[in-house]
Amino acid sequence: MTIASKITGLMALTLLLACSPPGDERQPAAASDPPEATPSDPLPSWNDGDAKQQILEFVAQVTNPASPAFVPAGERIATFDNDGTLWAERPLYFQLLFAVDRVRSMADDHPEWRAEQPFKAILEDDREALGKMGHAELGQLLAATHAGITAEEFSAIARGWLDTARHPLFDRPFNEIIYQPMLEVLSYLRANGFKTFITSAGGIEFMRTFAEKAYGIPPDQVIGSSIETEFRVEGDRTFLMRLPELHFADDKEGKPVAINRYIGQRPIAAFGNSDGDLQMLQYAAGGDRARLMVLVHHDDAEREYAYDRESRIGRLDKGLDEADRWGITVVSMKDDWRTVFPWGS
Amino acid sequence: MTIASKITGLMALTLLLACSPPGDERQPAAASDPPEATPSDPLPSWNDGDAKQQILEFVAQVTNPASPAFVPAGERIATFDNDGTLWAERPLYFQLLFAVDRVRSMADDHPEWRAEQPFKAILEDDREALGKMGHAELGQLLAATHAGITAEEFSAIARGWLDTARHPLFDRPFNEIIYQPMLEVLSYLRANGFKTFITSAGGIEFMRTFAEKAYGIPPDQVIGSSIETEFRVEGDRTFLMRLPELHFADDKEGKPVAINRYIGQRPIAAFGNSDGDLQMLQYAAGGDRARLMVLVHHDDAEREYAYDRESRIGRLDKGLDEADRWGITVVSMKDDWRTVFPWGS
Repeated sequence: MTIASKITGLMALTLLLACSPPGDERQPAAASDPPEATPSDPLPSWNDGDAKQQILEFVAQVTNPASPAFVPAGERIATFDNDGTLWAERPLYFQLLFAVDRVRSMADDHPEWRAEQPFKAILEDDREALGKMGHAELGQLLAATHAGITAEEFSAIARGWLDTARHPLFDRPFNEIIYQPMLEVLSYLRANGFKTFITSAGGIEFMRTFAEKAYGIPPDQVIGSSIETEFRVEGDRTFLMRLPELHFADDKEGKPVAINRYIGQRPIAAFGNSDGDLQMLQYAAGGDRARLMVLVHHDDAEREYAYDRESRIGRLDKGLDEADRWGITVVSMKDDWRTVFPWGS
Repeated sequence: MTIASKITGLMALTLLLACSPPGDERQPAAASDPPEATPSDPLPSWNDGDAKQQILEFVAQVTNPASPAFVPAGERIATFDNDGTLWAERPLYFQLLFAVDRVRSMADDHPEWRAEQPFKAILEDDREALGKMGHAELGQLLAATHAGITAEEFSAIARGWLDTARHPLFDRPFNEIIYQPMLEVLSYLRANGFKTFITSAGGIEFMRTFAEKAYGIPPDQVIGSSIETEFRVEGDRTFLMRLPELHFADDKEGKPVAINRYIGQRPIAAFGNSDGDLQMLQYAAGGDRARLMVLVHHDDAEREYAYDRESRIGRLDKGLDEADRWGITVVSMKDDWRTVFPWGS
């Protein structure tokens, strides 16, 4: 199948290019160091409250050999969505901003793009034309920016972008627009024998370029959407060529499928922030042992962004309706998080 | 695609059911403990020689921070084929013996199988009919024995088989027909900061049921062929249903593709035993750092089996021709291995 013929929810959202705010009036706060985790408080960026308590109690139970809820270390699997759960997703999924920047940087070698959509609209910053972009144009955008190069070339390009591009509101590299409370959860779980995985609709090779440094999650514990690749031999050189065809969309029902395929065990802890994560949380909830399901609710317009049921990016609607039924803990960024970003908020 | 429409090399080999020897005259040797690994000799089941020396030198180089060949710990990735590399594959791939046993155990619930191929031939042990089995029948065999149940049900069934079935020649559980010298290599690499992965044409969920106990490789570090699964919600129950459709054949060109997809880094060490592993070894060989590629040559008719260029199981033909060109170390089981199995040989 071609990318154009099976675009995921994530990918269809370049539509939102046309909807991104022209500017944001808020000023980022001055930097300050986050509080330091200690044995007595492993989650110092969390305010005392139900959410923090539930995380602490869950970990205490599954790591206590005397508890009926004890889970052996090798089976302590925790999965995390990325966009909106570990790092921000506004004004637009960061990977789409990468694709847009890449069109701009490649434009000199593609004079034909000046007359061809969606490239023309990106190069002219024509928000009206971008708003009309359909699946076919989006497929072209991703094929032009994500395929036709080797896996190693793509990683180098993505790394270069992360080293130079800056978030339009927070004016920092995108791999610093990550949530301090979630970094503490990752460290806390790992210190308690958990293996932590990303499972996101974002591109798997894109995320692997920063997940280890940003989150301490090595490449083989990053699961995401992927395109097809082909093994090639040219003389003594061997490499994987990235093809303009979607292999797997790691979103919604795809998340439990990918978790089973990559990890091979049902997670006992799962963290998300949108309806695209609901099936992953249901999968964890359907286990027969102690389990923890968490949805991060973006309700903090002052320190980050506020959006949920009506949002086209990271919509959280069914998730809020179904939270009680599946025992999902809904975290209020505003009330439950003392700090949002590692550099202060 | 259906299983029947895209059968892998591995799977097509039920044909070999008809060719498996009616009996083997050899008597398994009495059990004895393998020699113990020590810091001065981490590979005591290997005879001194080029193969052992190359493994030791490679590890010494990549772990020495003062060496130009040094590789940081997080990038020390080693991949291992399973059938014929970590455990035996004769008289037939063990997973096919599992499928045959499963047909027999399910037969009471399927009276129609007495008149339907390939089930009839299996139930009647009709080697002539089995020899005529084509791809369509093989697809039916795998669909009947590997799909139509949940992922967790399948794992329980596979575990039960491994607990009871015994190898026809060595008269031990199949998960004990593993190679002591390779267990030593796995331990030695891990002790030196390597992350060890299986990448095999065998079924991913089948291998995950024993890889941790047999090899110390956790489920998420096992890569293999897979069928499609579907996420389902029934009341409060959530599960993955196994479907009778092939998702991915992890063989030949598929191995580098899967390594990139699952691991996200090019291995610096790769171990195989057949032409199905050649592309994985070429992928490792094409890296620009110190690297080690190994082919286990089954040339030991006395302690295990002897086969290579003409074999239909685990054929090693191109691999022998290409070994020099790609810098592949060919290990002679007969000459390089002091011991074959953990229980003596």
